[in-house]
Amino acid sequence: MKLYDGAWAPSPRRVRMFLAEKRIDVERVVVDLKHGEHLRPDYAGINAQRQLPALLLDDGTLIDDSIAICRYFEALHPDPPLFGADPREIGLIEAWLRRIEHDCFQAVVLGFRNKVSVFAGRAVSGQWPPIEQIPALVDRGRCMWEAFAAVLDAHLAERRHIAGDLFTMADIAALVAIDFGVATRLPDPRDRHAALARWHAEVSARPSAAA
Amino acid sequence: MKLYDGAWAPSPRRVRMFLAEKRIDVERVVVDLKHGEHLRPDYAGINAQRQLPALLLDDGTLIDDSIAICRYFEALHPDPPLFGADPREIGLIEAWLRRIEHDCFQAVVLGFRNKVSVFAGRAVSGQWPPIEQIPALVDRGRCMWEAFAAVLDAHLAERRHIAGDLFTMADIAALVAIDFGVATRLPDPRDRHAALARWHAEVSARPSAAA
Repeated sequence: MKLYDGAWAPSPRRVRMFLAEKRIDVERVVVDLKHGEHLRPDYAGINAQRQLPALLLDDGTLIDDSIAICRYFEALHPDPPLFGADPREIGLIEAWLRRIEHDCFQAVVLGFRNKVSVFAGRAVSGQWPPIEQIPALVDRGRCMWEAFAAVLDAHLAERRHIAGDLFTMADIAALVAIDFGVATRLPDPRDRHAALARWHAEVSARPSAAA
Repeated sequence: MKLYDGAWAPSPRRVRMFLAEKRIDVERVVVDLKHGEHLRPDYAGINAQRQLPALLLDDGTLIDDSIAICRYFEALHPDPPLFGADPREIGLIEAWLRRIEHDCFQAVVLGFRNKVSVFAGRAVSGQWPPIEQIPALVDRGRCMWEAFAAVLDAHLAERRHIAGDLFTMADIAALVAIDFGVATRLPDPRDRHAALARWHAEVSARPSAAA
């Protein structure tokens, strides 16, 4: 099996952090996102969506989504569980994963893809006909970013990690989304939200955060 | 436990169809979406996000997301498996679920929430500060809708269901998204895509589709 990986981008980082927490080693092929290697025919022949990460299994199956790759490895190597150990945890973690994706990560993507000139005509991630940027979405994304930070801060004021005591995939997804938002120059939520800042420092200190 | 349910809306329908496939009975409380009962203090006190569906467990835990509710019940009642029975299936189904959500369901929501006057100032689902509608998003949503239909049609030309032979949660999510898109007057993809139309007829004929 081979993991197609890329530097700096948020989705590949989710998988690297998950694998580091699980202490799983996988053969990696690093695709050069900065120079557009993921858009060239060699990689498009492997992943028609031209996105990273992607996991190619030995039988030729391609799993082309970051959270899906993590769920594949969770099923292969259940310990330590990062998607929950019982039905209640499994449900709560999934609810947070979907909320982090919609309310935070996609809010960051809205601002980024509708602003940066390299995404002109490619304003939505994935393979699409030309989709023009809509500058008004930058403000919408920022509004969602700030509102989500307040929600997450209030939530973390009452618990150590997003799903309770234990570190889970929800922490990985939120850390990656927040770090990506700050890297795209959204206001740093740690400046106004003490519980979020405490959580961020603790989660960032895990060795996996540097994977 | 209690399931807060609502008529006509897509997210509650995902859960009803899943529970019907599993033959699971749950006590239901129907909240009247059409008359805004989900926005009133009684329901807001149960679910601060004021969305449906939501599952209230006996210990007071609230699971406030449709797919998360289904994963909770999948963990309690694994048979028949609708999120996959082995690591490869689990990965492929999750990749499709995330793609259906992002590329199809959210495309429908873009058109709907940025067009219909009842959503003025509430253009993103969930609880937010006022978010204005952006009419240009209606065209973006339609472009994504048509492109996704072509992708799904090509995929279904080579297999019976989205994840292969077996019916899974990916079929539920796609059916619900497509039926919701057609209900919001997006072009019916069955008119141009024969494999998608064959799959849609087969999946719609399952008793669970009427749940």
